[in-house]
Order: sequence, then C-alpha cells, then structure tokens
Amino acid sequence: MKRKVAVIGVGMVKVDHHWSESLRSLFTKAALNALEDAGIPKVEALYVGNMSAGQFNNQENIAPLLADSLGFNSIPSIRVEEGCSSGAAALYMGLKDVASGMHDIVMVGGVEKMMDTTTNDATFIISTVTDQEYEAFTGLSLAGINAMVMRLYMKRFGVKRESFAKFVVQMHDNASKNPYAQFPFKISLEKALNSVPVADPIHLMDCAPIGDGAAALILCPADKAKEFVSDCVEIAGAWKANDTFLFHMRKDFLTLKATVEASRNAYEMAKITPEDIDVAEVHDSFSIAGFLAIEDLGFARKGEAWKAVEEGLISLEGEIPINPSGGLKARGHPIGATGIYQAAEIVLQLRGEAGKRQVPDAQVGITHNTSGFGTSAIVHVFKAK
Amino acid sequence: MKRKVAVIGVGMVKVDHHWSESLRSLFTKAALNALEDAGIPKVEALYVGNMSAGQFNNQENIAPLLADSLGFNSIPSIRVEEGCSSGAAALYMGLKDVASGMHDIVMVGGVEKMMDTTTNDATFIISTVTDQEYEAFTGLSLAGINAMVMRLYMKRFGVKRESFAKFVVQMHDNASKNPYAQFPFKISLEKALNSVPVADPIHLMDCAPIGDGAAALILCPADKAKEFVSDCVEIAGAWKANDTFLFHMRKDFLTLKATVEASRNAYEMAKITPEDIDVAEVHDSFSIAGFLAIEDLGFARKGEAWKAVEEGLISLEGEIPINPSGGLKARGHPIGATGIYQAAEIVLQLRGEAGKRQVPDAQVGITHNTSGFGTSAIVHVFKAK
Repeated sequence: MKRKVAVIGVGMVKVDHHWSESLRSLFTKAALNALEDAGIPKVEALYVGNMSAGQFNNQENIAPLLADSLGFNSIPSIRVEEGCSSGAAALYMGLKDVASGMHDIVMVGGVEKMMDTTTNDATFIISTVTDQEYEAFTGLSLAGINAMVMRLYMKRFGVKRESFAKFVVQMHDNASKNPYAQFPFKISLEKALNSVPVADPIHLMDCAPIGDGAAALILCPADKAKEFVSDCVEIAGAWKANDTFLFHMRKDFLTLKATVEASRNAYEMAKITPEDIDVAEVHDSFSIAGFLAIEDLGFARKGEAWKAVEEGLISLEGEIPINPSGGLKARGHPIGATGIYQAAEIVLQLRGEAGKRQVPDAQVGITHNTSGFGTSAIVHVFKAK
Repeated sequence: MKRKVAVIGVGMVKVDHHWSESLRSLFTKAALNALEDAGIPKVEALYVGNMSAGQFNNQENIAPLLADSLGFNSIPSIRVEEGCSSGAAALYMGLKDVASGMHDIVMVGGVEKMMDTTTNDATFIISTVTDQEYEAFTGLSLAGINAMVMRLYMKRFGVKRESFAKFVVQMHDNASKNPYAQFPFKISLEKALNSVPVADPIHLMDCAPIGDGAAALILCPADKAKEFVSDCVEIAGAWKANDTFLFHMRKDFLTLKATVEASRNAYEMAKITPEDIDVAEVHDSFSIAGFLAIEDLGFARKGEAWKAVEEGLISLEGEIPINPSGGLKARGHPIGATGIYQAAEIVLQLRGEAGKRQVPDAQVGITHNTSGFGTSAIVHVFKAK
C-alpha cells in the first residue's frame, strides 16, 4: 500500500434485541462512540457495511442516510455489501481510501437491524447470501450447509459433538467478560450439548444468534495517528479472497480456500506468520465454522482444531486466544456489523483496554470475516505501535 | 491521488426487458465484452454496483457470485450500493483501488435486474432509496418528489412543460443512434407532451423507464495503459458529495447541493472548468432532474436550462452535448448499472468510437450520477490521452 493506515477510534453498542432503536439511531450511537474515542468531531468519508437493510428494513441508500444522521451531510459515504462479511468489506474499502491518499480521516462502520422481522423471515433473508438459483431455492439454509459439513468433518476426523460444545462453552466464557456481548453469560457443557437440534448435528447452541448491532472505527494515516491518540493500532495487512460461489463445486468441502488465501496474503503483506499472532477474532457463525477457521488460518492442522480447543490453546491465557469477545456465537452476529465488531475488539486488545477479557501482552491480532459458506473471506492484520 | 488511473476497456449489454437472462448471465455478458475490449483475459479485483438484488432478486452477496460466474473465483470482489448511483460508486471504489496501489487491473461494473418484479413492486423498491421512516412510508414516490420540484421550478422561473418535453425529444433523438439504448427511436414533441400523467406535472415521457442492464469497465494505472490499448482514457477527477437525506430539510429545493459540490471538487481535481467539458452524461431520471443537472453542473444559470435545450446547445453538435447515449430517459436506467453505462458512453466518445452519436472532437467528458433525490452525487472527469 502507498501509505500506512492506523485505527485511532473504536465505538460499539451492545449487540441485543434493540426494539426501540432504528437502523439510524443504532449506527449513530456506535459512530458517536468512535468519534469520542478518537477525540475528533468529524470525518472526511464514511464506509458502512450492511447486508440487507433493503430486505430487513425496506431501506436502501443507507450510507447518505447514516452520514446525515451524524450531521455529516456533505461527506462522501458509501455502503458496501458482501453478505456476512460486509463489515470487513467496509474496513477494506476505508483502508484503501486512506492508503490511496484520497482522504485522511475516514469512518468505517457496520450495522444490521435484524429484529424487525420474524425469525423465519430472517432465516430466509440470511439464505439470500447463498445462490438463489441453485441453492437457496431448494430450502437449503446456512444451518443446513454447515450441518452437512459438520457431519462430514466428524466422520472424516473422528471428532465428536463434545469437542464442538467445548468451543461453544469457551465462547460464552469469553462473552461473560464482554459488556458488548449479546449473551454475556457462561453456559455448561450439558447445555451446549443438549440444546434443541436445528439441523442435525447442529444444535441451537452451535449457531450464532440473530441480533441488532452497530460498530464503527476511525482510520487515519499512520504517520498522523500520534496527533490524535497515544495508543494507536496499525493495519499492517489486508486481503480479500473468493472461492466458488456454489458450495458443491468445491474440491475440498472441509477447507475454506478463501480463508486460506486471504490469510496467507494478509500475513505476507504484514510480514508475519501464524506463530506471531497473539489474538484472533474469527468467523464462527456455527461451531464447525469456528473449527475450520482455526485450521485454515494456520493455528492448527486440518482436523485438529479440537485439540486446540480441548488443550485450552484458544482460551484467553492460551497460546492463540480465539474470539476474546465471545465471537459470533456469544458476542453476537449482527451480520453487516460483525466484521467491525471483530476489528474493534482487536484494537481494544492491542491497546490493552479489553478489561476482564484482556489477552496478556497482545501485540499482533487478526480478524477473519467470511460471507456465505466461505464464498469469500477477508483477513486484516493489526499491530500495536 | 497517489497514482493516475485509466480506463482500458468498456462493455455493455443493450438495456432491455431481458426476460430470459438472470442477474448473473446479464452481468457476465457485459463483463466479457469489457475484457474483450481491453484484450485481457482476467482482472485482479471486481467492484460491482447494484441497488437492490436483495429486494428485486432475493440475492445478496452478489459480487463473489458474479466473479465466480466469470471464472474469477479467487479474486477479491465487493458490491457497493448507493441507491441510483451505485454504478458510479463502484467506479469510485475501483478507482481508489488502483490509485492506492492495491491492485493494477480492476473491473468495475454495475447490474440491475428489475423486470423480475411487477411495476408496482419496482416502484416500491425504488422508493426505498428515500427515507423509509419519514418519506417513503407516506406513499411518496420518487416521481412524487420530482413532481413537486418540477411544479415549483415551473412557477419560480416561468418555464413551461414544452421546454421539458423538448429535452425528452432530444434524449430520444440521441438514443435512436445508440445500439445499447432501451428506446432507440425518436418521439414527437406531441407524444412527449401528451403522454399519460404520472404525478402532475410529470407525465410518462418525463420519466426514465424500468429495465434490465449491465455494464463494465476495466481500469489500470495510467502509466501502464499503453501496454494494452492505443486509445486510453484517463480518469482525471472524481468526487462524491452528499446532501441532507431528507428532502424537506434543504434550504433550496431547486439546487442539488450534492451535484454542485461533487462537480466543483471533481473539476478542481481535474483542473478544468465547465467550459472545458466537451460532453456530459447526466442523471436525468426525470426531465426536471435533467434540468437541475444542467444548471448545477455549471452548464447553464439557475432557471435557464430551458435555454440550453431550446437553443440546441445540448444537442450532439451543440456547445455542451448532454447525454449522447440518450440518458436515463431513453438509453434506460437499470439502476445500479446506470453510472457505468454513463462512463462507458464517455469513454467511447473520447475514443471517437461512438458511431452515429459521436460528439465531434470530444477530449474532456464527465459523468454525473445521483441517488435518491440528490441525497448524494458522484461526478467523474475523463480525459482523452
């Protein structure tokens, strides 16, 4: 990149059922938090990630709407959509905006207001990130795709549901320390194992929830960051990769090629290896997705994520702490906002401001956000400066 | 910008009712045309503008889908949405991608498949670019907003419907020479005046139609363009500006502030004045919008667009030819694709390849794409090299 970029502010609202908030008010709160954190009154441009305001809220053209709500009715603002990774896509765009020299102070955010629909409608809308002509029209939901993969994975590697349940328990443990989490409480292994089946072998506790959320970051050129904040975090690498859109066209159902390619390229750009990473926020929309992420990002061998989980490597004190926020599973997954929540968590971790869920001495962190069932993946690498 | 950017390929499909095409097949055809035009087999990244595939086609996450359909299932691809200016927003993003040094060869495209719904549904979906909480829920459509503005404009400046109808006739004249136009035929002044009323004083012939379309461009660093093509076109300026999202909050209902600001900044970046511009593609979603654009872009004084129309200044041989393609009115307005159709037209004009609708010796051209009723505007400046 032509110019290095830093994060100088983060803002979030608690992921929740925000019945009394609108798309607009929810995002505005998160954005004002980010501005306050950076200590600045305004930005030069806004990128906002959102998957389906059209379907969820009958509202398109949301970026000028949100910019206006913030009082920034003259700045350029653009919405980016990339299914479940819309948040990371917004960050990826804002990053290039600053790196290109086009703007200096840029806000990137994400918002999804999902609770204005029924659960059935939400499940349908979420399935529109898969192929409507060849997959979704059959009634195959994302839970269905993940269930098939989980079944194959369990058979291929001899892994039991207990291992996945232990991952879920860890996510809730972490979320219990996160004031922004939708489910800030611990659950027992029994509860994780014995929740209602959704699409066997996936049970309710294997799934990320539906919720409302918004988060925002402030970016600026790295060489100007110290003007605003003492603790700045640099974005040292970023990559987005795709895979076949149709799941059944893939050669390997148990590896997300997009994750592998995005992470390898982002690591190379940041000049790191997986061993250098102190903390990671990964896309665990289902527990099986969490396992694939741990492996495809280079933290465990294929088929051995269960070891990292059972040996405690992914815990806050482990070798490679995964999802200190609680992850999509327990922090929550307000779709278009998730990638920004992940980045905000990593920034707090690298600033040493993550409170009870702080990973000791975290210097390098990554975020990993995917869309569909790995149709694309975006990985960002952050370094404390 | 840190690096200059050129357009080395353009591709379009005819705007039409493409009953037998899908979102995927339509875009793929346009994209393959652009690749063929540039003489290259692939690109490094894809940005695609689309307003409402979620609502029109129950398909989100469309950028990986379209990249995959092109056989590019490893490249980064992102959809950008900015209502009716989604196409220009995709170009704006791709431009920064190349300018930032992140990628060299980038495809930017736009697609909208609107004919899979009824006209009533399409009208509702289009209205979701306005404020759902304060405007759209009242039943106010975009035709309704434009009608109020047109009535005020006619009263304030003493302009008659005949002047608007003459603009419409000119658009159809131009479209009759454009093989990509949805309505490639001339119409009489009587027909333009006496079509059915939609929202008085707006009649059917004042409105851009609903249609299916897709278009694509190939971008690369300007200093590498000559490796691919002999006639390259440089993007010399680009700006996106916003206005209040709510129409009734504006101080001046007859000036689109976003257009004024976007054009002034883009002109300054390109070091030009309106007098230097040889050809322009402007956002005439309604004839009144065309009039406001002519004025707000600096081609006529406020209230005097009618003069430019009636004196023939906007015709292909005039001082400032407007919409040689036929504009949104007669080339068609497949929403998320429109900004790319505009850019493709300007590139063909500056290459001297616009056939019967060629503007003589065009060296500098602009595109102007807005969303909602001027909630935002994007202006790009192109120069022949």
